[in-house]
Parts: sequence; C-alpha cells; structure tokens
Amino acid sequence: MAQGTAGRTGRRGRMAARKAQQSLSAPYTLRRIGLVSLIDDEAIAIIERNADRILDEIGMDFRGDPETLELFRKHGARVDGERVRFDPGWCREKIKTAPQVFTQHARNPARSVQIGGDAQVYAPSFGPPFVHDMEKGRRYATLEDFHNITKLHYSLGPVNHSGGVVVEPVDVDVPLRHLKMAHAHLTLSDKPFMGAVTAPERARDTIDMCRIAMGREFVDQNCVLYSVVNTNAPLVMDETMLWALKEYAQAGQCTVVSPFVLGGAMSPVSVAATLAQVLAEVMASVALIQLIRPGAPAAFGTFFSPISLKTGAPTFGTPEGTQFQMCAKTLADRLGLPFHSVGGLTASKVPDAQAGYESQAQLMGATMAGVNFIIHATGCLEGLLTTGYEKIVMDADRVSAMQRFTQGVDFSEAAQAMEAFFEVEPGGHFLGAQHTQDNYETAFWMGDMSDNGTYEQWAAEGGLWQQDRASARVKQLLGEYEPPAMDAGVREALDDFVARRSREIMGGHT
Amino acid sequence: MAQGTAGRTGRRGRMAARKAQQSLSAPYTLRRIGLVSLIDDEAIAIIERNADRILDEIGMDFRGDPETLELFRKHGARVDGERVRFDPGWCREKIKTAPQVFTQHARNPARSVQIGGDAQVYAPSFGPPFVHDMEKGRRYATLEDFHNITKLHYSLGPVNHSGGVVVEPVDVDVPLRHLKMAHAHLTLSDKPFMGAVTAPERARDTIDMCRIAMGREFVDQNCVLYSVVNTNAPLVMDETMLWALKEYAQAGQCTVVSPFVLGGAMSPVSVAATLAQVLAEVMASVALIQLIRPGAPAAFGTFFSPISLKTGAPTFGTPEGTQFQMCAKTLADRLGLPFHSVGGLTASKVPDAQAGYESQAQLMGATMAGVNFIIHATGCLEGLLTTGYEKIVMDADRVSAMQRFTQGVDFSEAAQAMEAFFEVEPGGHFLGAQHTQDNYETAFWMGDMSDNGTYEQWAAEGGLWQQDRASARVKQLLGEYEPPAMDAGVREALDDFVARRSREIMGGHT
Repeated sequence: MAQGTAGRTGRRGRMAARKAQQSLSAPYTLRRIGLVSLIDDEAIAIIERNADRILDEIGMDFRGDPETLELFRKHGARVDGERVRFDPGWCREKIKTAPQVFTQHARNPARSVQIGGDAQVYAPSFGPPFVHDMEKGRRYATLEDFHNITKLHYSLGPVNHSGGVVVEPVDVDVPLRHLKMAHAHLTLSDKPFMGAVTAPERARDTIDMCRIAMGREFVDQNCVLYSVVNTNAPLVMDETMLWALKEYAQAGQCTVVSPFVLGGAMSPVSVAATLAQVLAEVMASVALIQLIRPGAPAAFGTFFSPISLKTGAPTFGTPEGTQFQMCAKTLADRLGLPFHSVGGLTASKVPDAQAGYESQAQLMGATMAGVNFIIHATGCLEGLLTTGYEKIVMDADRVSAMQRFTQGVDFSEAAQAMEAFFEVEPGGHFLGAQHTQDNYETAFWMGDMSDNGTYEQWAAEGGLWQQDRASARVKQLLGEYEPPAMDAGVREALDDFVARRSREIMGGHT
Repeated sequence: MAQGTAGRTGRRGRMAARKAQQSLSAPYTLRRIGLVSLIDDEAIAIIERNADRILDEIGMDFRGDPETLELFRKHGARVDGERVRFDPGWCREKIKTAPQVFTQHARNPARSVQIGGDAQVYAPSFGPPFVHDMEKGRRYATLEDFHNITKLHYSLGPVNHSGGVVVEPVDVDVPLRHLKMAHAHLTLSDKPFMGAVTAPERARDTIDMCRIAMGREFVDQNCVLYSVVNTNAPLVMDETMLWALKEYAQAGQCTVVSPFVLGGAMSPVSVAATLAQVLAEVMASVALIQLIRPGAPAAFGTFFSPISLKTGAPTFGTPEGTQFQMCAKTLADRLGLPFHSVGGLTASKVPDAQAGYESQAQLMGATMAGVNFIIHATGCLEGLLTTGYEKIVMDADRVSAMQRFTQGVDFSEAAQAMEAFFEVEPGGHFLGAQHTQDNYETAFWMGDMSDNGTYEQWAAEGGLWQQDRASARVKQLLGEYEPPAMDAGVREALDDFVARRSREIMGGHT
C-alpha cells in the first residue's frame, strides 16, 4: 500500500509522538488505478445546466442568518427573503479559491491524511444513537461505548480516521457531548477526527481543544478538523448547519457540504435529477465558504439512499447508490473539490449476510468511484441508527482488501516470475519454488476475519459464524489497547478545558 | 434491464413453449456501461510475450491421446512425447476461427443466451459434493437436492442458466450421474445448461439427450451445450478433460477452457505470472479446439484463488482475485474470445456475513470486469465444496442488483425531472410530486432478500437474520414451483434414453 506523504513537521512534542510510532500502518491510501465513472460529457453538460437552472430560477434557502444573506448580496447573488438565487456560473467562479488537495493534520503527524487528489481515507460511521453487540444486543449508546469504539478504530490499521460522532453518548447531557467526544478523540487516539456541527459554540470549543493539543499557531494556519454539514434537501441550509459552517470556515478548518438525500422523498425519484439537485446545493454552499474565507478547505459530499417505494424506508448497497456516487465524483472533479461519500452502509439490524452483501457493495462502489473520504466505512447497522461492535472489525477487514485493490497489479520483472516456470515442470507445483519462498509473506492480501480453513477444522474450533469470531476479536483489541502517547501538560490542559467549559455551559454561560 | 436478442426460431414444439412463457425475465443482460480493466498496453505486451515464451520454451503437456499429438504435429506445433511446444504467434493465429460471439440455445428459445460481446450471463455454482441448509446443516448432496436446486434456479429470474453439476448427486452411481443431471436440467428447467466433462461417452450421452429435446438437425447446427474443461495447472491437460474437449468440439458445442489455479501452488505467487501461465494454457487449448473443428465455439475461462500462504487454504473475494479477473478479461478480448470467470465465491461454511462480504466482492468484481459468463454466481459456500440452499436465493438477489447496475444511468429528459423542482419548493418533499407518482414503481432497484424496515417492525416479525428469511423463501419457491411445458413425446423419449443407457452402462456396455 502507498505510504502517504508524511505530515508536515510540527512541534517538539509531536516529534516525540512520531518517534514512538515506528510501525504505523499507512495513514491513507494513494490509489494507483483509474476511477470508474458512469457519466459522459454530454450527460455532464446536462446535469451542470440543470443545476445552474435550479440555482438561477428556484434558488436555495439559507435560514436564520442575515449576515450570510448580506454576504451573498454583496457579492452579487440575488437575495429575496431567505431565498438566494445565483446567475449561471457565479457559484463555480467563487469555488475556484477552494484547494483541490489539502492535508488534515492529526496530532500525531504520522497520522495526518491527504484529502483529495489520489488519496482515499476510510473513516468510521457517524451519528448512530444505538450500539449493538452479540452479547448485549441493541441498546442506547453511552460514553463508555464511544470510548470503546474510538479505541477500536485507533487499533485497526485500515481505518485512517477517528471519525466524529461514532455513536451518540446519550448518557452525557447534550450540551456537553461535543466536549466529551473531542476529548476522547484527542486522548484515546492520535488519528485525525471530525468536529461538532450542532451549534457554533460547540464548533468553537472543538477548535479550542485542537489548539491545546496541537498549538494555537499551528491550528490557525492548518486544517486539523474535518466537519460535515448536511444541507436540508431539497435546497435548504438550516441555521444550525449554517452557523457551524461559518465557524469552521472562519477558522480555516475544512467543511464538507453533504446533502443528505433519501431519494424519492428529498429529491426526485431518479439518479439524474438528484445529481442536479445535489450539485446545486453543494455549489451554493461551497461558494459561501469561499466568500467567508477564500481558500478555506471544503469538500463535495454526498449521502444518497434510494427509499423503498413500497415502504418509504431507506435502502443501502443498491445499484443506484453506487451509480450516483460514481457520477457525483466526476462532478466534484469538475469543480476541483475533494469528494466525500459513503461506504459500508447497510439496512440490516444485525451483522448477518445482508450486512455483508450491502456493506461490501457500498464500500467497493465507493472505492472504485475514487471517493476521497469514505465515511461510514466501518460499523454501520440499521442504516446508521446503530453502530455494531462486531461490524467494525468485520468492515475494517474489507477496507483493508479495498486498499490493497487500489494499488493495482505489480507487473515488475520480479512479479512476472519467469524463472519459476523454468524451475517447475508442467504438472508440478510452485509451493517450494524460489520465487514463492521469497514472496509468499506479502504476495497476496490476507484478511483477519475470514475463515478459509477446512470444514473439519472450523467445526473443531466451535463452528463459529463470523459475528462470533468478530466478538472475540473485539475483546482482544480492547484488552490489548494502549493509548497513544500524550504530553502530560497537554493532557492536563485538555482536562481543565473540558471541566471549565462544562461548568460554564451547565451554569448557562456559553 | 436489456432484453437480450431473442433466440432464433425453432421447431413447432419450441414455438409452443415460447408462447407459454409470456412474462419471462430477460434471458441475459446486455451491459450498457464500460469495463474496468487494470492492465495497460505495456503490461499487455509483457504478459503476452511471457505466455508466448512459456509455450515456446517450456510447452504444455496433452496427456493420453496420441491423436491430439498427431493433430498438433500436423499443423506445425513441436511435439516431444506428450509435451507440445508452439512458435510465438502460432496459437493466436489458430484461434482466429473461433467466434467472438455466439448463442447458446435453450430448449425454450426465449431462454437462449448470448455468449460474448456485451452480454453477461449469471450461472449457478458448479461441482460441490455437499449441500447446506439452515434446518439440516451440511451433508452429502443427493439427486433430490440436485432436483431442488435446479427448480430454484429455474424459479429465480436473475439466474440466466441452469448450470451443470449444481451439486454432485452422490446417491447416484457415478457412471449414471450425467444422465440424471442432464435429464433434470432438460425437464425441470428450460434454461440453457452445461454438459458433462467426466468421460467422452458421457459427453456423447448429453449431446444425444439435447438432440431428443431440441432436434438432431438443430443440435448439429447450433450450440446447445456449454461445457467447462479445466486444465491441470501448470501446463497440463489430462486425458479426461482432453477427451471431453474433443467430443464437444467435434459436435460443434461450446468448450470453455478454464485453468483451475490456486495461486501460489498451481501458479507462481503473483497475479502477473499467473496471467501469463493462464493465457498460455488457454491459447494452446483453444487452438486445439479450432484444429479439431474450425469455428467451434470456445471461451477463455479463469478460476483463480490465491491460497493463504499461512495455511495453504484457498481464499475468495480477495483483491487479487478481482485484479486477476479484470486483467484476464482484457487478454480474452485481445484474442477475440468470450470470457468466462467466477462470481459469488466464499470460503465461509455458512450463510453469514463473511459469505456476504466475499460473495459480493467476487460478484461485483466479475460484473465490473465485464465477465461474459459468470459461473458460481449463486449458492457457493466453503469454496465450492458446498452449495447452500439459502445462499442461492440470497445471491440471486445480489445478481439482480448487479444486472441493474450494468444498465447505467438514465439521463433522459424524463429522468432529469426538472418539472418536479418547480413543483416542490425548497424544504418540501417529492413523495407526492407528479414525477414520483409516475415513476416510483420502477425507479429504483428493489431486492427481495434485504430487510429495510424499522427495527421495531423487524423485531415484531421475529427478528430474523437474513439466512432465516432465506429459508422461508426457499420453501416458498419450491412449494410454488411448476415445471416448464414439455411435449409428452419428447419427455417419453428422454425417459427411455436414460433407462436404456443406464442398463447399458451398468451392464458394462457403454
């Protein structure tokens, strides 16, 4: 697997942390194979024209923030109440200041990730209120679950990111959750993570905590947070998301604009129409980011789930989901924006074959589409209502397979192994050949979670289904977990910050 | 989904059968999207040169048939004992008479399939001695299982083919199995099927049974059987396979040459080296088919499973498996041969998440590679040692999703649905929009086997895992099964043939 470009050098403390991590997995994958697109030039022109027309003739609502409306007006958009309309080409022009590729820095520089270009970053599920495991079943998630899941993702090499709301810690008061979550990501892991978007002061707190962990000056000059704001499809950005977007943009942190679309309900019942709608929403929103702070990092995000037109329920791992993703990636490339989208989703309630089929379909589609930031790559059950402990380790194994796949085929002289054919006669075998002996340890991808042995051996070992082997693996990883190194002073300052802010918030002082 | 070109018109009885089947699924899929290849021109040149060198300097063994050796010699190959060596380019020249595209005729013309070009045919697993279901677990398969599985595949629309040895009916004497299997395919289904390759007289019997069902003249002039011969990698074709190949080639029936390769044991431990070996074996073998009967239909097949270099066990759903397939498809295109390869494989012993992940990876890889004939698309467990009843219906659902995926995105004016945006305000919903009402029934692919509903509803319905829902579906399909129409005289003649040949074989007269 490609070793990503190392993160830029930072403070002395971060140098020490890097030294302590000699045998890291690659922080992200640089793909060496082409993309799969499903949209040709003619169709691109159609979708772009439709998006322009939607923005020009219908427009998009930006709610609850007169400052945003004034900013749009000042730069030439047509504002009517909270509805903003845009001349064709206006958004595209504004977006040009957004970087095509940037680095999201982790507190451990060896974990920093490239966003955009040929990079692919695989990240955890975001948002579920429930957790599931094979022992205790489905239940509301707690802070302990949040900690466990963050530890798991830290331990799993193929997972490049610590994520954001990996589960909702429902035993923590809502106004304090963002503090507890950022604290967990910063102390239990040293992988990059995502910022809170539920209120502007929560975004500020998260940025302040990064300043403590990574240095104020560094944070002011670099992207250390990657945060997703969802438009309220169709064609609305509500005030909560808008304020979070402003907060991160002003701080120069990355905002992903990801229209959350249940196709057929929140968009017309077709891939082509949804593409135009999503393109319109992303263009207007990323243009706003660039008005707020030209050059602030941003990304084109999508979450598209076709609803079952029998029951109204969202569906996952579908052909349209992957088709949509592959087309949207092309549209993002045309805007020069990194592309963020989903992998690993399933509607299944449990880690069964449905979960396997659907998650693999979604993950493989995202990988082949060339999605730069693959969110929900691990742990999803029940269409993001539940994170599964077992599912996390099962998915991570498949992420690893996908990462290997994107490295393409080695056609070097060594890989051609012509000498092996002369060594082994027709009808012979290659197990003892020199080439095999020299290469067998790394020649083929090997998963951790698949049972490939004989039936007899499998039966003798208890005849375990994958979810039961995964249970054991979860326990093993949590048992072996050791937190990454952190400077004692930094740790104390983070603890103090959380304590002080908690007092202020619960006392009513935000 | 694309309706394939209808089969050519046939005899009166087959006309009647066609009339009885007004609402068939499409007999196969014509893909409307591009292929994914992972091999560039430079690498193609390397692999082709290496294959030529293997055939020239090492050669391939064709065992147990002096007639074949004489045929090779006569046409200019270099024969030394049973080893045959070929000048570079010789095989490629001989292969030119093989058709790029042909039709395999089913006894029901509406079920005939195109092999090659843009067509993709999804077919059952081949060869397992065991069956598995959730009630009775894993056990040796019987003729009753063979019948049940043939009925299931007949009932499942996405499955285009009845297959061959869908399981080994171990309660039938080995010398009679081919008769019972061909009889089942011809009477319980009207989809196309595969011929026996275990002995030349068994191939002849299968051809004779097709003559009874479809007319002697028709069978002599058309391809009605599609049979797979495996080389004995590396670089051997044994006498059983060789004789079957000769029998089918002489009769103008299709032979797929599919080197069976456990990578690292039966080929060097790399994709690049295995590609050269497989290309060499296929070129020499297909050249032989064309020497036997120029113009006889043939296909380039692959079965590549990287072995676990820890345990020696075959692995499935791996990145290298898909990479290999995508490259081999390009090599087949260069030879102008239809490409046959695997989908749906898993090493899992049970229909669990491992089975789902691995089967989906293998199936999606095969689909995106553009494999023309996707064998093992349904039912595989335990790396082809077991066929799972539940797995068949679970896999068939995913086959259906893949077939939809290959139809690409509809960018028509109707699909763009611009009027819906003007009908629905920002922040509204599209459920009641005219476009939604007009299109919701067919807009998105909907599977049969995924549970997409709420947790509460799922729990109220028993909290069934997918394998349990699949059990119910299997029972339902077998309960509702009705055999396709067959002329009473044809049926009697088939029964008589099987009875007579059984007596002859068991009496020692073959």
